[in-house]
Amino acid sequence: MQLTKAQREQFDRDGYLFFPALFSPQEIATLTDEVPHLYAQDRPENVREKQGGAVRTNFAAHLYSAPFARLARHPRMVLPVEQLFGESVYMHQFKINGKNAFDGDVWQWHQDYGTWLNDDLMPTPRAMNVAIFLDEVNEHNGPLMFIPGSHRLGVLEAGHDTTTTSYPLWTINNDNIRTMVEKAGGRDGGIVAPKGPVGSMLLFHSCLVHASSSNLSPWNRVSVYLSLCAVSNHIRRFKRVEWIAHRDFSPIECLPDDCLQQDYVVDLPWENGTPPEAARTSLERLEETA
Amino acid sequence: MQLTKAQREQFDRDGYLFFPALFSPQEIATLTDEVPHLYAQDRPENVREKQGGAVRTNFAAHLYSAPFARLARHPRMVLPVEQLFGESVYMHQFKINGKNAFDGDVWQWHQDYGTWLNDDLMPTPRAMNVAIFLDEVNEHNGPLMFIPGSHRLGVLEAGHDTTTTSYPLWTINNDNIRTMVEKAGGRDGGIVAPKGPVGSMLLFHSCLVHASSSNLSPWNRVSVYLSLCAVSNHIRRFKRVEWIAHRDFSPIECLPDDCLQQDYVVDLPWENGTPPEAARTSLERLEETA
Repeated sequence: MQLTKAQREQFDRDGYLFFPALFSPQEIATLTDEVPHLYAQDRPENVREKQGGAVRTNFAAHLYSAPFARLARHPRMVLPVEQLFGESVYMHQFKINGKNAFDGDVWQWHQDYGTWLNDDLMPTPRAMNVAIFLDEVNEHNGPLMFIPGSHRLGVLEAGHDTTTTSYPLWTINNDNIRTMVEKAGGRDGGIVAPKGPVGSMLLFHSCLVHASSSNLSPWNRVSVYLSLCAVSNHIRRFKRVEWIAHRDFSPIECLPDDCLQQDYVVDLPWENGTPPEAARTSLERLEETA
Repeated sequence: MQLTKAQREQFDRDGYLFFPALFSPQEIATLTDEVPHLYAQDRPENVREKQGGAVRTNFAAHLYSAPFARLARHPRMVLPVEQLFGESVYMHQFKINGKNAFDGDVWQWHQDYGTWLNDDLMPTPRAMNVAIFLDEVNEHNGPLMFIPGSHRLGVLEAGHDTTTTSYPLWTINNDNIRTMVEKAGGRDGGIVAPKGPVGSMLLFHSCLVHASSSNLSPWNRVSVYLSLCAVSNHIRRFKRVEWIAHRDFSPIECLPDDCLQQDYVVDLPWENGTPPEAARTSLERLEETA
């Protein structure tokens, strides 16, 4: 899996690349089948809805679930990112996110790198957002919306929105969004929402401005979201717990291309529980020993 | 403007008909230009947001604004509805509804006829919903979503939702929606969201189940929504104020087809203010004097 020159140029220009049906339904089934077992576990990596206890987000499954550990080392995902960054990457964040049928909530316009910079002291935006569709994404179940090219503006000023949604988010003000959308083409492509079947993959720049609408459809929209950070760009502070912002900066070593269909042995360091030190946080800046 | 046999069959089967760009941009401009004057008026027909005072919905403009009074008599809108009902129609409701850029809210799945039956004692669903797009409707600004064929189920059980949105609504439960969407084709057309340019028109059955998502885009989505009720099917109770559920059951007399571009004289009975009796409501059933 090598990106073409046209794809690399497209990424630089638009800030994202879309690979419809990159993984087969059979490959994705090995992941989907595992999700109920993950959700059933009583561990801090499962963030549940206040009402009802359904899991909204599961973090760090690649450290305690073999299928997701294999996905985390998949060459179809890792190699294009390494190619774009020109170096090895480590897993900065790994989560399974459900935008559930009927009540999946809105995410206002935001950039991810703002959080990574402010909370984690990640030095530059050389970390890639990856979304892998465990469900089909269509126009009705709240697809991600991007403003193409907005990543080129770097880190934008943001305000802390604690009222619109059930989670606080650093969001970008409406006038800035309006200007960016106009610049990106207005009604003619100023907002894009890639849609595709199960197994599709999106790579998008950590400064790309994105949002997503509510999901009123009867179709769940579960995706794996992860961020692959260039090893030299590792975070410098452990303000967030380790299952949200990982602290193992060793380069990902890819498995073979059939790793979602063969039982390759993978290390599952958190299989028997979350280590206590993962919950410890600090506002101290890491010494740069590299 | 006569509907073809195929269109009439399509309406019976799907519960809606879509006419992209039925009105020209020049025709729609005569309406759009009038909207700020309507919103600026201090009258009860303007329902404002609690915060900021922006108008969310304007009611009954056809009784005090000449351009909207002409629209209310437009043959391209009225004739197809008369044709489908086989009789004359009167204006049951007329509103200008903004689903505004960035903060347009969700409408959960519902039918309109439920309200008209319960509040207004409208005997049968022989009233047609009409939406006329004053702004382009695209995938990002919260288009109406329909479940095709759901009108054939008649009035569905609904629960009063007072928590999800800023206005109470009789909404249909998720299991029923899931079943209807499956029956209508599931992922293959079980939900449709007609999109089109300024001046497009939607006709949809008053039992058609519909919803709409939030509008996170920088584009307003202002539409005229009205309901044309078969004259014999007029409401039997005045529980709601008159600017929300009209009490003049006389048949609409159409103007010529160029009425949005020529200054035909129209009656504007509320031009100098809302008559006091319009605010009076009653839970008594009307005597059926017809």
